[in-house]
Amino acid sequence: MAMNPKNKNIKDLFPRTLVNINGEIYPPEAANISVFDRGFLYGDSVYEVTKTIKGKCLFLEEHLDRLYNSAELIAMPVLFTRAEIKKEIEKTVKALDVDQAYVRFVVTRGITPIGLDVQTEQNNMVIVVKEYPDYPAWWYEKGVSVCISSFLRNDPKATDPNAKSGNYLNNVLALLDARKKEFFDAVMTNKDGFITEGTTNNIWMIKNGEILTPPLKAGLLKGITRDKILDIMKKEKFKGGEKNFTPAEFLEADEAFFTSSTKGIVPICQINEKILQNTPGPITKKLMTSYEKLLKA
Amino acid sequence: MAMNPKNKNIKDLFPRTLVNINGEIYPPEAANISVFDRGFLYGDSVYEVTKTIKGKCLFLEEHLDRLYNSAELIAMPVLFTRAEIKKEIEKTVKALDVDQAYVRFVVTRGITPIGLDVQTEQNNMVIVVKEYPDYPAWWYEKGVSVCISSFLRNDPKATDPNAKSGNYLNNVLALLDARKKEFFDAVMTNKDGFITEGTTNNIWMIKNGEILTPPLKAGLLKGITRDKILDIMKKEKFKGGEKNFTPAEFLEADEAFFTSSTKGIVPICQINEKILQNTPGPITKKLMTSYEKLLKA
Repeated sequence: MAMNPKNKNIKDLFPRTLVNINGEIYPPEAANISVFDRGFLYGDSVYEVTKTIKGKCLFLEEHLDRLYNSAELIAMPVLFTRAEIKKEIEKTVKALDVDQAYVRFVVTRGITPIGLDVQTEQNNMVIVVKEYPDYPAWWYEKGVSVCISSFLRNDPKATDPNAKSGNYLNNVLALLDARKKEFFDAVMTNKDGFITEGTTNNIWMIKNGEILTPPLKAGLLKGITRDKILDIMKKEKFKGGEKNFTPAEFLEADEAFFTSSTKGIVPICQINEKILQNTPGPITKKLMTSYEKLLKA
Repeated sequence: MAMNPKNKNIKDLFPRTLVNINGEIYPPEAANISVFDRGFLYGDSVYEVTKTIKGKCLFLEEHLDRLYNSAELIAMPVLFTRAEIKKEIEKTVKALDVDQAYVRFVVTRGITPIGLDVQTEQNNMVIVVKEYPDYPAWWYEKGVSVCISSFLRNDPKATDPNAKSGNYLNNVLALLDARKKEFFDAVMTNKDGFITEGTTNNIWMIKNGEILTPPLKAGLLKGITRDKILDIMKKEKFKGGEKNFTPAEFLEADEAFFTSSTKGIVPICQINEKILQNTPGPITKKLMTSYEKLLKA
Protein backbone atom coordinates (compact mmCIF):
# COMPACT_ATOMS: atom_id res chain seq x y z
CA MET A 1 0.00 0.00 0.00
CA ALA A 2 1.10 3.55 -0.69
CA MET A 3 1.07 4.97 2.82
CA ASN A 4 2.68 8.33 3.24
CA PRO A 5 5.96 8.26 5.09
CA LYS A 6 5.87 10.07 8.42
CA ASN A 7 7.20 13.61 8.50
CA LYS A 8 8.06 13.70 4.80
CA ASN A 9 9.41 17.05 3.68
CA ILE A 10 9.41 18.62 7.12
CA LYS A 11 12.91 19.96 6.61
CA ASP A 12 11.83 21.68 3.39
CA LEU A 13 8.56 22.99 4.81
CA PHE A 14 10.17 24.51 7.88
CA PRO A 15 13.55 26.03 7.07
CA ARG A 16 15.28 28.10 9.78
CA THR A 17 13.02 26.69 12.48
CA LEU A 18 13.59 25.31 15.97
CA VAL A 19 11.13 23.66 18.31
CA ASN A 20 11.35 23.56 22.09
CA ILE A 21 9.38 20.71 23.66
CA ASN A 22 9.23 20.80 27.45
CA GLY A 23 12.59 22.53 27.65
CA GLU A 24 14.55 20.65 25.01
CA ILE A 25 15.29 22.10 21.59
CA TYR A 26 14.78 19.99 18.45
CA PRO A 27 15.17 20.54 14.72
CA PRO A 28 11.72 20.56 13.03
CA GLU A 29 11.99 17.03 11.65
CA ALA A 30 12.56 15.65 15.16
CA ALA A 31 9.88 17.76 16.88
CA ASN A 32 7.34 15.11 17.76
CA ILE A 33 4.68 14.80 20.40
CA SER A 34 2.77 11.79 21.65
CA VAL A 35 -0.45 10.99 19.76
CA PHE A 36 -1.95 10.68 23.27
CA ASP A 37 -1.39 14.36 23.95
CA ARG A 38 -4.80 16.00 24.40
CA GLY A 39 -3.74 18.78 22.07
CA PHE A 40 -3.67 16.21 19.28
CA LEU A 41 -6.74 14.23 20.36
CA TYR A 42 -9.12 17.09 21.24
CA GLY A 43 -7.44 20.40 20.36
CA ASP A 44 -7.23 20.68 24.16
CA SER A 45 -4.54 23.34 24.34
CA VAL A 46 -3.97 27.09 24.52
CA TYR A 47 -1.43 29.07 22.56
CA GLU A 48 -0.03 32.45 21.64
CA VAL A 49 1.72 33.84 18.58
CA THR A 50 4.05 36.80 18.59
CA LYS A 51 7.17 37.88 16.77
CA THR A 52 10.62 39.12 17.69
CA ILE A 53 12.03 42.50 16.84
CA LYS A 54 15.83 42.59 17.22
CA GLY A 55 15.74 39.36 19.21
CA LYS A 56 13.08 40.59 21.66
CA CYS A 57 9.55 39.17 21.78
CA LEU A 58 6.96 41.84 21.09
CA PHE A 59 4.56 42.38 24.04
CA LEU A 60 5.61 39.07 25.62
CA GLU A 61 4.13 39.98 29.03
CA GLU A 62 0.73 40.65 27.47
CA HIS A 63 0.89 37.36 25.56
CA LEU A 64 1.76 35.47 28.75
CA ASP A 65 -1.15 37.16 30.55
CA ARG A 66 -3.46 36.05 27.77
CA LEU A 67 -2.12 32.48 27.72
CA TYR A 68 -2.95 32.06 31.42
CA ASN A 69 -6.34 33.69 30.86
CA SER A 70 -7.13 31.30 27.97
CA ALA A 71 -6.13 28.36 30.17
CA GLU A 72 -8.45 29.60 32.92
CA LEU A 73 -11.31 29.95 30.42
CA ILE A 74 -10.92 26.29 29.48
CA ALA A 75 -10.37 25.18 33.10
CA MET A 76 -6.86 23.98 32.31
CA PRO A 77 -4.25 24.08 35.07
CA VAL A 78 -0.89 25.38 33.81
CA LEU A 79 1.86 23.80 35.85
CA PHE A 80 4.64 25.78 34.18
CA THR A 81 5.50 29.05 35.89
CA ARG A 82 5.52 32.27 33.94
CA ALA A 83 9.28 32.52 34.45
CA GLU A 84 9.79 28.99 33.07
CA ILE A 85 7.80 29.69 29.92
CA LYS A 86 9.56 33.00 29.39
CA LYS A 87 12.98 31.47 29.88
CA GLU A 88 12.28 28.68 27.37
CA ILE A 89 10.95 31.11 24.77
CA GLU A 90 14.01 33.31 25.15
CA LYS A 91 16.36 30.32 25.02
CA THR A 92 14.80 29.11 21.76
CA VAL A 93 14.78 32.58 20.16
CA LYS A 94 18.46 32.93 21.06
CA ALA A 95 19.29 29.49 19.66
CA LEU A 96 17.70 30.28 16.29
CA ASP A 97 19.41 33.68 16.17
CA VAL A 98 17.65 35.40 13.24
CA ASP A 99 16.72 39.06 12.70
CA GLN A 100 13.01 38.49 12.84
CA ALA A 101 11.25 35.39 14.15
CA TYR A 102 7.70 34.12 14.38
CA VAL A 103 7.13 32.65 17.86
CA ARG A 104 4.27 30.27 18.65
CA PHE A 105 3.96 28.79 22.12
CA VAL A 106 1.45 26.12 22.97
CA VAL A 107 0.55 24.56 26.32
CA THR A 108 -1.62 21.43 26.22
CA ARG A 109 -3.59 19.63 28.93
CA GLY A 110 -0.95 16.93 28.57
CA ILE A 111 -1.39 13.19 28.35
CA THR A 112 -4.23 11.47 30.19
CA PRO A 113 -5.91 8.11 29.72
CA ILE A 114 -8.25 8.41 26.70
CA GLY A 115 -11.48 10.05 27.85
CA LEU A 116 -12.69 13.60 28.14
CA ASP A 117 -13.09 13.94 31.86
CA VAL A 118 -9.60 13.63 33.23
CA GLN A 119 -7.75 16.64 34.56
CA THR A 120 -4.12 17.18 33.80
CA GLU A 121 -1.29 16.54 36.18
CA GLN A 122 1.23 17.47 33.56
CA ASN A 123 1.13 19.85 30.61
CA ASN A 124 3.12 19.63 27.44
CA MET A 125 4.70 22.82 26.15
CA VAL A 126 5.73 23.35 22.56
CA ILE A 127 7.50 26.49 21.36
CA VAL A 128 8.02 26.97 17.62
CA VAL A 129 10.45 29.68 16.54
CA LYS A 130 11.00 30.30 12.85
CA GLU A 131 12.55 32.99 10.75
CA TYR A 132 10.08 35.02 8.79
CA PRO A 133 10.50 37.58 6.10
CA ASP A 134 8.70 40.93 6.05
CA TYR A 135 5.13 40.66 4.83
CA PRO A 136 4.49 41.95 1.30
CA ALA A 137 4.55 45.76 1.10
CA TRP A 138 1.32 45.84 -0.94
CA TRP A 139 -0.68 44.63 2.06
CA TYR A 140 0.18 47.89 3.80
CA GLU A 141 0.28 50.16 0.73
CA LYS A 142 -2.86 49.00 -1.08
CA GLY A 143 -4.79 46.92 1.44
CA VAL A 144 -6.34 43.45 1.32
CA SER A 145 -9.82 42.08 0.60
CA VAL A 146 -12.19 40.38 3.04
CA CYS A 147 -15.54 38.66 2.64
CA ILE A 148 -18.34 38.31 5.15
CA SER A 149 -18.28 34.58 5.86
CA SER A 150 -21.28 32.29 5.82
CA PHE A 151 -19.66 30.56 8.83
CA LEU A 152 -20.78 32.02 12.15
CA ARG A 153 -18.07 32.60 14.74
CA ASN A 154 -18.25 30.08 17.60
CA ASP A 155 -20.68 31.17 20.31
CA PRO A 156 -18.97 32.22 23.59
CA LYS A 157 -21.43 29.96 25.46
CA ALA A 158 -20.22 26.96 23.40
CA THR A 159 -16.51 27.45 22.57
CA ASP A 160 -15.39 30.89 23.73
CA PRO A 161 -13.41 32.76 21.03
CA ASN A 162 -11.70 34.70 23.81
CA ALA A 163 -9.88 31.49 24.81
CA LYS A 164 -7.09 31.18 22.22
CA SER A 165 -7.25 27.41 21.98
CA GLY A 166 -6.30 24.56 19.69
CA ASN A 167 -9.94 24.33 18.54
CA TYR A 168 -9.38 26.33 15.40
CA LEU A 169 -11.53 24.56 12.83
CA ASN A 170 -14.14 27.34 12.78
CA ASN A 171 -11.46 29.74 11.54
CA VAL A 172 -9.79 27.19 9.26
CA LEU A 173 -13.09 26.57 7.44
CA ALA A 174 -13.96 30.26 7.11
CA LEU A 175 -10.50 31.02 5.71
CA LEU A 176 -10.42 28.07 3.28
CA ASP A 177 -13.80 29.24 1.98
CA ALA A 178 -12.62 32.86 1.62
CA ARG A 179 -9.45 31.85 -0.21
CA LYS A 180 -11.45 29.67 -2.59
CA LYS A 181 -13.44 32.81 -3.46
CA GLU A 182 -10.11 34.69 -3.81
CA PHE A 183 -10.48 36.90 -0.76
CA PHE A 184 -7.54 37.48 1.55
CA ASP A 185 -9.54 36.77 4.71
CA ALA A 186 -13.02 36.06 6.09
CA VAL A 187 -14.90 38.13 8.66
CA MET A 188 -17.35 36.17 10.79
CA THR A 189 -20.61 37.31 12.35
CA ASN A 190 -22.29 36.03 15.51
CA LYS A 191 -25.77 34.53 15.85
CA ASP A 192 -27.18 38.02 16.49
CA GLY A 193 -25.88 39.21 13.11
CA PHE A 194 -23.03 41.41 14.36
CA ILE A 195 -19.45 41.38 13.09
CA THR A 196 -17.03 39.57 15.42
CA GLU A 197 -13.50 39.14 14.02
CA GLY A 198 -11.37 37.85 11.14
CA THR A 199 -9.89 34.36 11.16
CA THR A 200 -6.65 35.49 12.87
CA ASN A 201 -7.23 39.18 13.51
CA ASN A 202 -9.52 41.87 14.94
CA ILE A 203 -11.69 43.99 12.66
CA TRP A 204 -12.06 47.77 12.60
CA MET A 205 -14.19 50.21 10.61
CA ILE A 206 -14.11 53.99 10.36
CA LYS A 207 -17.25 55.99 9.63
CA ASN A 208 -17.60 59.77 9.79
CA GLY A 209 -14.34 60.04 11.69
CA GLU A 210 -15.26 57.41 14.30
CA ILE A 211 -13.02 54.36 14.69
CA LEU A 212 -15.08 51.30 15.71
CA THR A 213 -14.25 47.72 16.67
CA PRO A 214 -16.72 45.10 17.96
CA PRO A 215 -16.92 44.77 21.77
CA LEU A 216 -15.67 41.61 23.50
CA LYS A 217 -19.23 40.48 24.20
CA ALA A 218 -19.76 40.08 20.43
CA GLY A 219 -17.58 36.94 20.86
CA LEU A 220 -13.98 37.50 19.86
CA LEU A 221 -10.40 37.36 21.03
CA LYS A 222 -9.14 40.29 23.08
CA GLY A 223 -6.36 41.13 20.64
CA ILE A 224 -3.15 42.57 22.00
CA THR A 225 -2.71 44.90 19.02
CA ARG A 226 -6.42 45.74 19.43
CA ASP A 227 -5.70 46.83 23.02
CA LYS A 228 -2.73 48.91 21.87
CA ILE A 229 -4.87 50.68 19.25
CA LEU A 230 -7.57 51.42 21.84
CA ASP A 231 -4.80 52.88 24.05
CA ILE A 232 -3.48 55.02 21.19
CA MET A 233 -7.03 56.24 20.48
CA LYS A 234 -7.41 57.40 24.09
CA LYS A 235 -4.01 59.08 24.26
CA GLU A 236 -4.28 60.79 20.89
CA LYS A 237 -7.98 61.61 21.31
CA PHE A 238 -9.34 59.73 18.31
CA LYS A 239 -13.12 59.38 18.28
CA GLY A 240 -14.84 55.99 18.57
CA GLY A 241 -14.24 52.76 20.51
CA GLU A 242 -15.90 49.39 21.03
CA LYS A 243 -19.30 49.17 19.34
CA ASN A 244 -21.31 46.49 17.56
CA PHE A 245 -21.83 46.86 13.84
CA THR A 246 -23.59 44.75 11.21
CA PRO A 247 -22.25 43.58 7.82
CA ALA A 248 -24.46 46.25 6.17
CA GLU A 249 -22.82 48.97 8.30
CA PHE A 250 -19.36 47.49 7.70
CA LEU A 251 -19.98 47.65 3.94
CA GLU A 252 -20.65 51.39 4.29
CA ALA A 253 -17.32 52.05 6.07
CA ASP A 254 -15.21 54.99 4.93
CA GLU A 255 -12.08 53.03 5.90
CA ALA A 256 -11.42 49.60 7.37
CA PHE A 257 -8.47 47.61 8.64
CA PHE A 258 -7.55 44.60 10.72
CA THR A 259 -5.01 44.17 13.50
CA SER A 260 -2.84 41.18 14.42
CA SER A 261 0.19 40.59 16.63
CA THR A 262 2.36 39.43 13.75
CA LYS A 263 0.93 41.61 10.95
CA GLY A 264 0.22 44.85 12.85
CA ILE A 265 -2.33 47.15 11.15
CA VAL A 266 -3.39 45.94 7.69
CA PRO A 267 -5.73 48.17 5.65
CA ILE A 268 -8.80 46.58 4.04
CA CYS A 269 -9.49 47.75 0.49
CA GLN A 270 -12.46 45.51 -0.35
CA ILE A 271 -15.41 43.99 1.57
CA ASN A 272 -17.33 41.43 -0.51
CA GLU A 273 -17.83 43.16 -3.90
CA LYS A 274 -17.57 46.65 -2.41
CA ILE A 275 -14.31 48.52 -3.14
CA LEU A 276 -13.15 51.02 -0.51
CA GLN A 277 -11.62 53.97 -2.36
CA ASN A 278 -8.19 55.39 -1.50
CA THR A 279 -7.04 52.65 0.86
CA PRO A 280 -5.37 53.16 3.26
CA GLY A 281 -7.50 56.13 4.26
CA PRO A 282 -6.19 59.12 6.22
CA ILE A 283 -7.22 57.93 9.69
CA THR A 284 -5.86 54.42 9.10
CA LYS A 285 -2.56 56.00 7.99
CA LYS A 286 -2.39 58.07 11.19
CA LEU A 287 -2.96 54.96 13.31
CA MET A 288 -0.33 53.04 11.35
CA THR A 289 2.17 55.81 12.05
CA SER A 290 1.29 55.92 15.76
CA TYR A 291 1.53 52.13 16.05
CA GLU A 292 4.93 52.14 14.28
CA LYS A 293 6.14 54.69 16.83
CA LEU A 294 4.93 52.50 19.68
CA LEU A 295 6.84 49.50 18.25
CA LYS A 296 10.02 51.54 18.00
CA ALA A 297 9.71 52.69 21.62
CA MET B 1 14.02 24.24 35.90
CA ALA B 2 11.58 21.46 36.63
CA MET B 3 10.31 20.75 33.14
CA ASN B 4 8.28 17.62 32.73
CA PRO B 5 10.02 14.88 30.81
CA LYS B 6 8.36 14.06 27.51
CA ASN B 7 6.04 11.05 27.44
CA LYS B 8 6.48 10.24 31.10
CA ASN B 9 4.35 7.33 32.24
CA ILE B 10 2.93 6.58 28.80
CA LYS B 11 3.63 2.87 29.27
CA ASP B 12 1.64 2.85 32.52
CA LEU B 13 -1.20 4.98 31.19
CA PHE B 14 -1.71 2.84 28.10
CA PRO B 15 -1.20 -0.84 28.87
CA ARG B 16 -2.12 -3.38 26.17
CA THR B 17 -2.16 -0.68 23.49
CA LEU B 18 -0.74 -0.41 19.96
CA VAL B 19 -0.67 2.59 17.65
CA ASN B 20 -0.54 2.50 13.87
CA ILE B 21 0.82 5.68 12.30
CA ASN B 22 0.60 5.82 8.51
CA GLY B 23 0.86 2.05 8.26
CA GLU B 24 3.56 1.33 10.84
CA ILE B 25 2.76 -0.10 14.26
CA TYR B 26 4.36 1.40 17.39
CA PRO B 27 4.15 0.73 21.13
CA PRO B 28 2.39 3.64 22.87
CA GLU B 29 5.55 5.25 24.22
CA ALA B 30 6.96 5.53 20.68
CA ALA B 31 3.73 6.73 19.04
CA ASN B 32 4.65 10.29 18.19
CA ILE B 33 3.46 12.75 15.59
CA SER B 34 5.01 15.96 14.35
CA VAL B 35 4.06 19.10 16.29
CA PHE B 36 3.46 20.59 12.81
CA ASP B 37 0.59 18.20 12.16
CA ARG B 38 -2.59 20.25 11.79
CA GLY B 39 -4.36 17.86 14.13
CA PHE B 40 -2.08 19.11 16.90
CA LEU B 41 -2.03 22.78 15.86
CA TYR B 42 -5.72 23.32 15.07
CA GLY B 43 -7.65 20.14 15.94
CA ASP B 44 -7.86 19.87 12.14
CA SER B 45 -8.72 16.18 11.95
CA VAL B 46 -11.62 13.73 11.80
CA TYR B 47 -11.93 10.51 13.73
CA GLU B 48 -14.08 7.54 14.66
CA VAL B 49 -14.28 5.30 17.70
CA THR B 50 -15.57 1.75 17.67
CA LYS B 51 -14.84 -1.49 19.44
CA THR B 52 -14.11 -5.05 18.46
CA ILE B 53 -16.23 -8.04 19.32
CA LYS B 54 -14.35 -11.32 18.87
CA GLY B 55 -11.67 -9.54 16.83
CA LYS B 56 -14.15 -7.89 14.46
CA CYS B 57 -14.79 -4.13 14.40
CA LEU B 58 -18.40 -3.35 15.16
CA PHE B 59 -20.18 -1.55 12.28
CA LEU B 60 -16.85 -0.67 10.64
CA GLU B 61 -18.45 0.14 7.26
CA GLU B 62 -20.78 2.66 8.90
CA HIS B 63 -17.85 4.23 10.78
CA LEU B 64 -15.84 4.51 7.56
CA ASP B 65 -18.84 6.14 5.83
CA ARG B 66 -19.05 8.65 8.63
CA LEU B 67 -15.30 9.37 8.63
CA TYR B 68 -15.46 10.34 4.94
CA ASN B 69 -18.61 12.36 5.59
CA SER B 70 -16.94 14.25 8.46
CA ALA B 71 -13.95 14.97 6.21
CA GLU B 72 -16.27 16.33 3.53
CA LEU B 73 -18.02 18.56 6.07
CA ILE B 74 -14.67 20.15 6.97
CA ALA B 75 -13.52 20.28 3.31
CA MET B 76 -10.65 17.90 4.03
CA PRO B 77 -9.42 15.65 1.22
CA VAL B 78 -8.75 12.10 2.43
CA LEU B 79 -5.99 10.62 0.32
CA PHE B 80 -6.20 7.19 1.94
CA THR B 81 -8.57 4.77 0.28
CA ARG B 82 -11.25 3.04 2.25
CA ALA B 83 -9.50 -0.29 1.67
CA GLU B 84 -6.21 1.10 2.99
CA ILE B 85 -7.79 2.41 6.19
CA LYS B 86 -9.68 -0.83 6.73
CA LYS B 87 -6.59 -2.95 6.15
CA GLU B 88 -4.53 -0.93 8.63
CA ILE B 89 -7.25 -1.09 11.30
CA GLU B 90 -7.53 -4.85 10.88
CA LYS B 91 -3.76 -5.27 10.91
CA THR B 92 -3.48 -3.34 14.19
CA VAL B 93 -6.40 -5.16 15.83
CA LYS B 94 -4.80 -8.46 14.87
CA ALA B 95 -1.40 -7.39 16.19
CA LEU B 96 -2.84 -6.49 19.61
CA ASP B 97 -4.84 -9.73 19.74
CA VAL B 98 -7.16 -9.18 22.71
CA ASP B 99 -10.76 -10.29 23.32
CA GLN B 100 -12.23 -6.83 23.24
CA ALA B 101 -10.53 -3.70 21.92
CA TYR B 102 -11.31 0.00 21.77
CA VAL B 103 -10.43 1.30 18.29
CA ARG B 104 -9.90 4.98 17.54
CA PHE B 105 -8.88 6.06 14.05
CA VAL B 106 -7.92 9.62 13.23
CA VAL B 107 -7.14 11.22 9.87
CA THR B 108 -5.60 14.71 9.98
CA ARG B 109 -5.15 17.36 7.30
CA GLY B 110 -1.46 16.53 7.56
CA ILE B 111 1.50 18.84 7.73
CA THR B 112 1.46 22.17 5.93
CA PRO B 113 3.45 25.36 6.41
CA ILE B 114 2.03 27.16 9.47
CA GLY B 115 -1.09 29.06 8.41
CA LEU B 116 -4.75 28.25 8.19
CA ASP B 117 -5.34 28.44 4.48
CA VAL B 118 -3.28 25.64 3.05
CA GLN B 119 -4.93 22.50 1.72
CA THR B 120 -3.47 19.12 2.39
CA GLU B 121 -1.47 17.08 -0.05
CA GLN B 122 -0.88 14.42 2.54
CA ASN B 123 -2.90 13.24 5.51
CA ASN B 124 -1.61 11.63 8.64
CA MET B 125 -3.48 8.60 9.93
CA VAL B 126 -3.31 7.41 13.52
CA ILE B 127 -5.03 4.23 14.72
CA VAL B 128 -5.11 3.51 18.45
CA VAL B 129 -6.14 0.00 19.49
CA LYS B 130 -6.29 -0.83 23.19
CA GLU B 131 -7.74 -3.59 25.27
CA TYR B 132 -10.72 -2.58 27.30
CA PRO B 133 -12.64 -4.30 30.03
CA ASP B 134 -16.43 -4.52 30.15
CA TYR B 135 -18.04 -1.36 31.42
CA PRO B 136 -19.41 -1.54 34.98
CA ALA B 137 -22.61 -3.60 35.22
CA TRP B 138 -24.34 -0.90 37.32
CA TRP B 139 -24.44 1.47 34.33
CA TYR B 140 -26.79 -0.96 32.64
CA GLU B 141 -28.61 -2.27 35.72
CA LYS B 142 -29.22 1.01 37.59
CA GLY B 143 -28.50 3.76 35.09
CA VAL B 144 -26.35 6.89 35.21
CA SER B 145 -26.99 10.57 35.99
CA VAL B 146 -26.83 13.51 33.57
CA CYS B 147 -27.10 17.27 34.03
CA ILE B 148 -28.31 19.86 31.56
CA SER B 149 -25.12 21.77 30.81
CA SER B 150 -24.73 25.53 30.89
CA PHE B 151 -22.48 25.09 27.85
CA LEU B 152 -24.37 25.32 24.56
CA ARG B 153 -23.49 22.74 21.91
CA ASN B 154 -21.50 24.24 19.03
CA ASP B 155 -23.76 25.78 16.38
CA PRO B 156 -23.82 23.82 13.09
CA LYS B 157 -23.21 27.11 11.23
CA ALA B 158 -19.99 27.63 13.24
CA THR B 159 -18.45 24.20 14.00
CA ASP B 160 -20.81 21.46 12.85
CA PRO B 161 -21.30 18.77 15.54
CA ASN B 162 -22.13 16.33 12.74
CA ALA B 163 -18.45 16.46 11.67
CA LYS B 164 -16.69 14.23 14.20
CA SER B 165 -13.55 16.33 14.40
CA GLY B 166 -10.55 17.00 16.62
CA ASN B 167 -12.25 20.20 17.85
CA TYR B 168 -13.61 18.65 21.01
CA LEU B 169 -13.17 21.36 23.60
CA ASN B 170 -16.90 22.13 23.73
CA ASN B 171 -17.52 18.57 24.94
CA VAL B 172 -14.43 18.47 27.17
CA LEU B 173 -15.60 21.57 29.05
CA ALA B 174 -19.19 20.37 29.43
CA LEU B 175 -18.01 17.01 30.77
CA LEU B 176 -15.40 18.47 33.16
CA ASP B 177 -18.14 20.71 34.54
CA ALA B 178 -20.61 17.80 34.91
CA ARG B 179 -18.05 15.59 36.67
CA LYS B 180 -17.19 18.41 39.07
CA LYS B 181 -20.89 18.45 40.01
CA GLU B 182 -20.75 14.65 40.31
CA PHE B 183 -22.89 13.84 37.30
CA PHE B 184 -21.89 11.07 34.93
CA ASP B 185 -22.40 13.17 31.81
CA ALA B 186 -23.64 16.51 30.49
CA VAL B 187 -26.44 17.06 28.00
CA MET B 188 -26.09 20.20 25.89
CA THR B 189 -28.79 22.41 24.40
CA ASN B 190 -28.64 24.54 21.26
CA LYS B 191 -29.20 28.30 21.00
CA ASP B 192 -32.93 27.68 20.42
CA GLY B 193 -33.17 25.91 23.78
CA PHE B 194 -33.59 22.34 22.51
CA ILE B 195 -31.67 19.30 23.69
CA THR B 196 -28.90 18.22 21.28
CA GLU B 197 -26.66 15.42 22.63
CA GLY B 198 -24.41 14.23 25.43
CA THR B 199 -20.65 14.80 25.34
CA THR B 200 -19.94 11.49 23.59
CA ASN B 201 -23.41 10.06 22.99
CA ASN B 202 -26.93 10.61 21.65
CA ILE B 203 -29.82 11.32 23.99
CA TRP B 204 -33.24 9.66 24.10
CA MET B 205 -36.39 10.17 26.16
CA ILE B 206 -39.56 8.11 26.45
CA LYS B 207 -42.90 9.72 27.27
CA ASN B 208 -46.31 8.05 27.16
CA GLY B 209 -44.88 5.15 25.18
CA GLU B 210 -43.17 7.34 22.55
CA ILE B 211 -39.39 7.05 22.09
CA LEU B 212 -37.90 10.42 21.09
CA THR B 213 -34.44 11.60 20.08
CA PRO B 214 -33.51 15.10 18.80
CA PRO B 215 -33.41 15.49 15.00
CA LEU B 216 -30.09 16.09 13.21
CA LYS B 217 -31.01 19.71 12.56
CA ALA B 218 -30.87 20.33 16.34
CA GLY B 219 -27.07 20.13 15.84
CA LEU B 220 -25.63 16.77 16.77
CA LEU B 221 -23.66 13.79 15.53
CA LYS B 222 -25.56 11.22 13.49
CA GLY B 223 -24.74 8.38 15.87
CA ILE B 224 -24.34 4.90 14.46
CA THR B 225 -26.03 3.28 17.46
CA ARG B 226 -28.71 6.00 17.14
CA ASP B 227 -29.31 4.86 13.54
CA LYS B 228 -29.52 1.23 14.66
CA ILE B 229 -32.09 2.09 17.34
CA LEU B 230 -34.19 4.03 14.81
CA ASP B 231 -34.02 0.92 12.56
CA ILE B 232 -35.10 -1.34 15.42
CA MET B 233 -37.98 1.03 16.21
CA LYS B 234 -39.24 0.78 12.63
CA LYS B 235 -38.88 -2.99 12.42
CA GLU B 236 -40.42 -3.69 15.80
CA LYS B 237 -43.08 -0.98 15.47
CA PHE B 238 -42.12 1.14 18.47
CA LYS B 239 -43.81 4.55 18.58
CA GLY B 240 -41.80 7.79 18.26
CA GLY B 241 -38.79 8.98 16.28
CA GLU B 242 -36.80 12.19 15.75
CA LYS B 243 -38.34 15.17 17.52
CA ASN B 244 -37.08 18.26 19.31
CA PHE B 245 -37.59 18.47 23.05
CA THR B 246 -36.66 21.03 25.70
CA PRO B 247 -34.90 20.46 29.04
CA ALA B 248 -38.31 20.93 30.77
CA GLU B 249 -39.80 18.14 28.63
CA PHE B 250 -36.71 15.96 29.15
CA LEU B 251 -37.12 16.35 32.93
CA GLU B 252 -40.65 14.97 32.61
CA ALA B 253 -39.52 11.81 30.78
CA ASP B 254 -40.90 8.46 31.91
CA GLU B 255 -37.62 6.82 30.85
CA ALA B 256 -34.37 8.08 29.32
CA PHE B 257 -31.15 6.62 27.98
CA PHE B 258 -28.14 7.44 25.85
CA THR B 259 -26.50 5.54 23.01
CA SER B 260 -22.84 5.28 22.01
CA SER B 261 -20.78 3.03 19.75
CA THR B 262 -18.61 1.76 22.56
CA LYS B 263 -21.17 1.80 25.41
CA GLY B 264 -24.32 0.75 23.56
CA ILE B 265 -27.59 1.67 25.33
CA VAL B 266 -27.05 3.16 28.81
CA PRO B 267 -30.14 3.97 30.91
CA ILE B 268 -30.36 7.39 32.57
CA CYS B 269 -31.66 7.33 36.16
CA GLN B 270 -31.28 11.01 37.02
CA ILE B 271 -31.54 14.35 35.16
CA ASN B 272 -30.33 17.29 37.25
CA GLU B 273 -32.00 16.77 40.65
CA LYS B 274 -34.89 14.74 39.20
CA ILE B 275 -34.74 10.99 39.88
CA LEU B 276 -36.32 8.72 37.25
CA GLN B 277 -37.99 5.84 39.11
CA ASN B 278 -37.44 2.19 38.19
CA THR B 279 -34.53 2.68 35.78
CA PRO B 280 -34.15 1.03 33.34
CA GLY B 281 -37.81 1.29 32.42
CA PRO B 282 -39.72 -1.36 30.47
CA ILE B 283 -39.31 0.18 27.00
CA THR B 284 -35.59 0.85 27.53
CA LYS B 285 -35.21 -2.79 28.59
CA LYS B 286 -36.94 -4.00 25.43
CA LEU B 287 -34.63 -1.86 23.28
CA MET B 288 -31.57 -3.11 25.16
CA THR B 289 -32.65 -6.69 24.45
CA SER B 290 -33.27 -5.96 20.75
CA TYR B 291 -29.92 -4.18 20.41
CA GLU B 292 -28.12 -7.07 22.12
CA LYS B 293 -29.71 -9.42 19.59
CA LEU B 294 -28.52 -7.20 16.72
CA LEU B 295 -24.95 -7.28 18.08
CA LYS B 296 -25.01 -11.06 18.30
CA ALA B 297 -26.23 -11.35 14.69
